[in-house]
Amino acid sequence: MELATHGAMPDGGVTRLALSEADIDARRLIARWAESLQAEVLADDAGNCFIRYAGRDPELPPVMAGSHIDTVPGGGKFDGAYGVVAALEVIEAMQQAGVRPKRSVEAVIWTNEEGARFSPGQMGAAAFAGTRSVDEILCVKDRDGVRVRDVLPRMLAALPKARMRSLGVPITAFFEAHIEQGPELEAHATQIGVVTGIQGRRSFIVTVLGEAAHGGTARQSERKDALLGAVRIIGALEASVLENESDARLTIGTFSLEPNAPLVVPGCVRFSVDLRHPENATMKRLGDLVPAICARHRGACAVEVVENANAPCAYFGEPMMQFIEAAVDRLQLSRRRIFSLAGHDSREIVKIAPTGMIFVPCKRGLSHSALEEAEPHDLAAGARVLAEVVIAACDA
Amino acid sequence: MELATHGAMPDGGVTRLALSEADIDARRLIARWAESLQAEVLADDAGNCFIRYAGRDPELPPVMAGSHIDTVPGGGKFDGAYGVVAALEVIEAMQQAGVRPKRSVEAVIWTNEEGARFSPGQMGAAAFAGTRSVDEILCVKDRDGVRVRDVLPRMLAALPKARMRSLGVPITAFFEAHIEQGPELEAHATQIGVVTGIQGRRSFIVTVLGEAAHGGTARQSERKDALLGAVRIIGALEASVLENESDARLTIGTFSLEPNAPLVVPGCVRFSVDLRHPENATMKRLGDLVPAICARHRGACAVEVVENANAPCAYFGEPMMQFIEAAVDRLQLSRRRIFSLAGHDSREIVKIAPTGMIFVPCKRGLSHSALEEAEPHDLAAGARVLAEVVIAACDA
Repeated sequence: MELATHGAMPDGGVTRLALSEADIDARRLIARWAESLQAEVLADDAGNCFIRYAGRDPELPPVMAGSHIDTVPGGGKFDGAYGVVAALEVIEAMQQAGVRPKRSVEAVIWTNEEGARFSPGQMGAAAFAGTRSVDEILCVKDRDGVRVRDVLPRMLAALPKARMRSLGVPITAFFEAHIEQGPELEAHATQIGVVTGIQGRRSFIVTVLGEAAHGGTARQSERKDALLGAVRIIGALEASVLENESDARLTIGTFSLEPNAPLVVPGCVRFSVDLRHPENATMKRLGDLVPAICARHRGACAVEVVENANAPCAYFGEPMMQFIEAAVDRLQLSRRRIFSLAGHDSREIVKIAPTGMIFVPCKRGLSHSALEEAEPHDLAAGARVLAEVVIAACDA
Repeated sequence: MELATHGAMPDGGVTRLALSEADIDARRLIARWAESLQAEVLADDAGNCFIRYAGRDPELPPVMAGSHIDTVPGGGKFDGAYGVVAALEVIEAMQQAGVRPKRSVEAVIWTNEEGARFSPGQMGAAAFAGTRSVDEILCVKDRDGVRVRDVLPRMLAALPKARMRSLGVPITAFFEAHIEQGPELEAHATQIGVVTGIQGRRSFIVTVLGEAAHGGTARQSERKDALLGAVRIIGALEASVLENESDARLTIGTFSLEPNAPLVVPGCVRFSVDLRHPENATMKRLGDLVPAICARHRGACAVEVVENANAPCAYFGEPMMQFIEAAVDRLQLSRRRIFSLAGHDSREIVKIAPTGMIFVPCKRGLSHSALEEAEPHDLAAGARVLAEVVIAACDA
């Protein structure tokens, strides 16, 4: 709740965009918490931050747990933040119990998971996993033309005691606790979701180029109206992608137009297309439809389609799921396996280390919304499972 | 061309939004021109500016000529600006010829014709004609929440020598020279358009209220996607309004959404609807369809429709048209009568004084675009007709 004051909105939601002042203030707060835990703060060139509780053998690769603290605009208090706070809680609990594990434990904040400001997301985790280069992510611009390169130093300057470390250091295992962001656990009155994998996504930026003209004079039949062109394309995308594919998700989350004046026929429209499907083969087929549909329905306008993310589904594997399930059973909590429809930093980290995710229920499955809500006892149960698996991994 | 340097864009277009710095700078420039003409500058509470060349009998109501100098974003050099510059040209020509007419001549700049920043437009002219109250227009906000009240004093401060006058002072006649903003004069190789009237318009702000949700998790069938709702509504508006009505014009010129992030199902969309038709009865019928269509196609979302402008067609009348035609004939220029599809300040001023409009051709009929273009000899011919009618009205 204290973390949620940074970027708090009047409606109870949180807007804490990646590397914004609110994000930087929130990291400053977490660094203060780290200080009271006498834990060291580390950071890397992608802005990922690590709160390290050194183990008995600090040379061994650490066990990491965490998530992200950036939000979408008007997001909630729990998405991401819960996983980071739970990891800090694990360190605190170990210290209070006088437990010093063999391996070091690190609570991690991955930079820019949401991609709401700097698209696409899972940026810090992707840089850590080597999927994206630091040079590339530093050049990504937000809507105002501000680059990651321009704001990252401000964030690092806010953590003067942070020691810089290399990207992609070896890790023993990574665990991410997260709210489910879906209704399944609530519907089955289950406390813990053991995540089997993460749905992939393909995303596109579509630009429709028409010709600006006077809204009162230009004859309708002679217009190159980029907005009506975009509307026809989106209508066709909805019909084609969702037809007979009840598991597909299509989100047009951003939409901008020029010149954006009431009396002017729009000359240019740009919108995002986010497409998901739990099966890689179907997602490939649906994604491949996007450029074709845009071209077919562009009318008198020109259209340009750029694919800016193509992440196939990730799977955490049987040994990891059984490792988490054993911990859940030791704590006598209820559990079920669940496939994550939302993307997470773990989709990147699983590429370089054993990775597992622990879900807790959230109200009505709502997320990316001020209405996001989770029960304290569910959050506590998830944190206990996280502690259990972290300790087990530390001493393995 | 000098006026067009204020708000100049790299592509040759002009962005000079009402009461922006560029608009204020442009008025400062015109006040300097007025000084060199030894003409007095006046202003009223709506920010309308008047450059006055006093006649032999300064007590008589003046003859006014002019237009506006604000533009849409990415507009052209001629829309509006031409009518103001031509009116100043008329005063200069009279002075150079040693002509001092019986009635005073005033070149007028009406505030915010376009309505691109503060919607709806024809704001200064409507306040002058008594259609809208000053109190109401001062409270109109732009997209950033800035009110007319907040910026108007800055504009007036830029004209320290301007004498304040009452709104709606009696005038003998008003003449507005303007580019056609349509292709008819060019197509008929005609120099002068004698405007018969101005097409009316109805405009609406439509708000579609859905529910923000996570783009990866929320099931498609359970979403309240405000963007897909808006797309369906706009598709239905296009189909219904334009069906069998080749003279109707439908423009969705502004469109915004919240939270406008790639991975979030939009919770709220707001867009403008501008509707025109040359016949009042048809325009009423089509405009009445808008709320009904919005309600019918809103799907799972809620929808709110506010009509923010309803201006019926205006007609200038036979005597005025013949008065202008006589002037055109004296100058031996070609002419044709033409109905204006674009809105103009004259639609307001005709309510309180004899009003006439003079059109000159523009290239390909393009306007509200950087591609707006007009030939110097056509602009000069229009200015000569304007001088001819102003002088005739001054001494009538």
